[in-house]
Amino acid sequence: MSIVTPRTLPGFMQLLPKEQILFNEIKEKIQKSYERFGFLPIDTPVIELSEVLLAKAGGETEKQIYKFNKGDKELALRFDLTVPLAKYVTENYNNLTFPFRRYQIGKVYRGERAQKGRYREFYQCDIDIIGDGELSNINDAEIPSVIYNTFKELNFGKFTICINNRKILNGLFEYLQLTDKSSDILRIIDKIEKIGRNNVIAEMKDIAIDENKINKIMEFIAIEGTTEEKLQKLNNLNIISEKFQEGLKDLTEVVKYIKAFGVLEDYFKIDLTIARGLDYYTGTVYETFLDEYKELGSICSGGRYDDLAGYYTTKKLPGVGISIGLTRLFYQLNENKIIEASKKSIADAIIISMIDDYSYAANVATEFRKAGINTQLYTENKKIKAKFKYADKLEIPYVIIIGEDEISNNTITLKDMKKGEQREIKIEEAIKIIY
Amino acid sequence: MSIVTPRTLPGFMQLLPKEQILFNEIKEKIQKSYERFGFLPIDTPVIELSEVLLAKAGGETEKQIYKFNKGDKELALRFDLTVPLAKYVTENYNNLTFPFRRYQIGKVYRGERAQKGRYREFYQCDIDIIGDGELSNINDAEIPSVIYNTFKELNFGKFTICINNRKILNGLFEYLQLTDKSSDILRIIDKIEKIGRNNVIAEMKDIAIDENKINKIMEFIAIEGTTEEKLQKLNNLNIISEKFQEGLKDLTEVVKYIKAFGVLEDYFKIDLTIARGLDYYTGTVYETFLDEYKELGSICSGGRYDDLAGYYTTKKLPGVGISIGLTRLFYQLNENKIIEASKKSIADAIIISMIDDYSYAANVATEFRKAGINTQLYTENKKIKAKFKYADKLEIPYVIIIGEDEISNNTITLKDMKKGEQREIKIEEAIKIIY
Repeated sequence: MSIVTPRTLPGFMQLLPKEQILFNEIKEKIQKSYERFGFLPIDTPVIELSEVLLAKAGGETEKQIYKFNKGDKELALRFDLTVPLAKYVTENYNNLTFPFRRYQIGKVYRGERAQKGRYREFYQCDIDIIGDGELSNINDAEIPSVIYNTFKELNFGKFTICINNRKILNGLFEYLQLTDKSSDILRIIDKIEKIGRNNVIAEMKDIAIDENKINKIMEFIAIEGTTEEKLQKLNNLNIISEKFQEGLKDLTEVVKYIKAFGVLEDYFKIDLTIARGLDYYTGTVYETFLDEYKELGSICSGGRYDDLAGYYTTKKLPGVGISIGLTRLFYQLNENKIIEASKKSIADAIIISMIDDYSYAANVATEFRKAGINTQLYTENKKIKAKFKYADKLEIPYVIIIGEDEISNNTITLKDMKKGEQREIKIEEAIKIIY
Repeated sequence: MSIVTPRTLPGFMQLLPKEQILFNEIKEKIQKSYERFGFLPIDTPVIELSEVLLAKAGGETEKQIYKFNKGDKELALRFDLTVPLAKYVTENYNNLTFPFRRYQIGKVYRGERAQKGRYREFYQCDIDIIGDGELSNINDAEIPSVIYNTFKELNFGKFTICINNRKILNGLFEYLQLTDKSSDILRIIDKIEKIGRNNVIAEMKDIAIDENKINKIMEFIAIEGTTEEKLQKLNNLNIISEKFQEGLKDLTEVVKYIKAFGVLEDYFKIDLTIARGLDYYTGTVYETFLDEYKELGSICSGGRYDDLAGYYTTKKLPGVGISIGLTRLFYQLNENKIIEASKKSIADAIIISMIDDYSYAANVATEFRKAGINTQLYTENKKIKAKFKYADKLEIPYVIIIGEDEISNNTITLKDMKKGEQREIKIEEAIKIIY
């Protein structure tokens, strides 16, 4: 047989077992946290009809899609979990109960230019709450509580959930008659920390914005203080715009309930410059930053949208949701050594037999497993040193040694690998220690 | 915006949330069971280079592969988890510890002809133990113990693990000088329950097999009795073939240890007709059947192979493993109403507020969640009847009702939906009842 060099495509994460244990631990914590809030699981195909998957897409996104033909069908791989959700909800509309709260954790595909920390296959961990026709603001307030609970569980360090409402920004731009320039302005504002106040003003002048309008924008983004102070100052701006005032009212209500949902004040703040690039956000928007690692960018983002599935149905399906891009986040956290698995190995114990007959060893393994201990049996005919080296490499915390003595005494010798201590004890006693 | 009809491709499973809860429960039980035996998790890309993925494939398999070009690369979707394992092990050879025990649970893709119960995207749940150069027979005996533990946990009813050794069959055919006809003979033997003994003999005659050889084959497949009796009768056949005797020795040893690994005698048997279609099995082979639903076919199969990755490396990597085709199995079990989720809903409790201010309700939700109770808050401004209907549809076992009285008493009203009883109690008391 001719030999092919096995290799993995660039942009595809493939971890060693120890990293995978850690990755899975994080993924499971996210799942458990989503379930804690009563979100229902769904799973959708990775492959969809191009026509269905790309009903809305266009531009940059469409270029990145993995598309191909199979038989007479043009197919595509999902590039996010939002379009599949829109498909799922409209396809199953009559069988779902609204508000429909779902989580989905799965791989998505984007043929981006490969670069360090950018992935073509990556996990997204999404939650969304979809209303049938309408959806109350309470949901917008509950989402930060999910973020809070999730990242508290994940224990990556102190984080801040930044909240804004798109209506405030959109209302301001409407009021200033700058709607057509809004994306340019947001792009400029976004650079304020890098280039400073004066350059931001200069750049706005460059795109022909009146000085008094610039002043209003600068006054707006300069709003600081506590959450209450910010809301008060927004009120004091006297922006005569229905949209602005609606956004302010929504934001005020959301903030009120965020606290009731147990999010500590230190963990969230109003950030008036957050807009989120995506077109479909229409109300509350969220971004989340690790306080010590702001350079990682937002680690959990999302928002409120008026219309989940306008390209599939005439039904109005407003929603609110967030997404964690787990693969990229994991890469960043791992690179920055922010994370460590609570368990280095899957096995809690490994059984090493000093004799050739494995009957007793197999019995002990079975007893341990029945007691709920993840147990491995070392099976190969190697020198004792090699057997211990194996246990050591896998970082299994307990080694159970079985020889003639243990068999005749109906015991095992338990070695605590961390302490380096070992002693001959009864099987039940060992189970109590390890479990 | 023009409207596209949302639809899912045939051959792709997409479940409603309640079925998904059940599916996930099964998947998690399998995962936990695999971990109980110390198998390490790995995850590999769904997309690989065609050249790498198809290094060995050919014939029927290759036709089913999803292949496409992206940039200047020819890519393919994985069609099983064995080739990715071979890739993974050879790619990471220097960073792995052997015997390498891994599990992988993930979706694979085959463009099969779409038909009821056949899927183009399906989950496989695999375990394999890979040795570096050699791998002891103990592993072959431990695998049935994993199957046993897994299906005991899954509780689909009584099952039987059927075991054979390919060397016995191959040795027999070698001895009878029928190696070139072995696959035809196996195909004929396989029909014995359907067409009967005489027709099997007739069909063998049709492919020009001598009568005395047919007699030996019939004597072989007629072997019945207890496991010990079968082994004795195999011995008594006096087949002068090194391979046959080696297979018999291996099978005898495997059977001995299976019992030591806690598999009850009633749950496994030697079945001399099991060969497994795949070419690469060279020793022990396994199939598993539900006693009450034999027509479902084998629900968990696998075996021993001499050479995992001959197309990637000159290193000899023998292994033994099994696979559960979860998507198809789930479909069958669900169709036959063999399975039921232990929980019908993700949420254990739902909070229904009778008043417009949700502060207290949000507080209660937070307390419940902190206590580990999966809790949902009903957020929409609907009639009380609609709110209860929502809880009912989602089959959430407890409803927490909050009104003016509860707020002023600092209590909640807990309604047990099954019993239909409700009473006003303290939050902590409710937590104790629900948790």
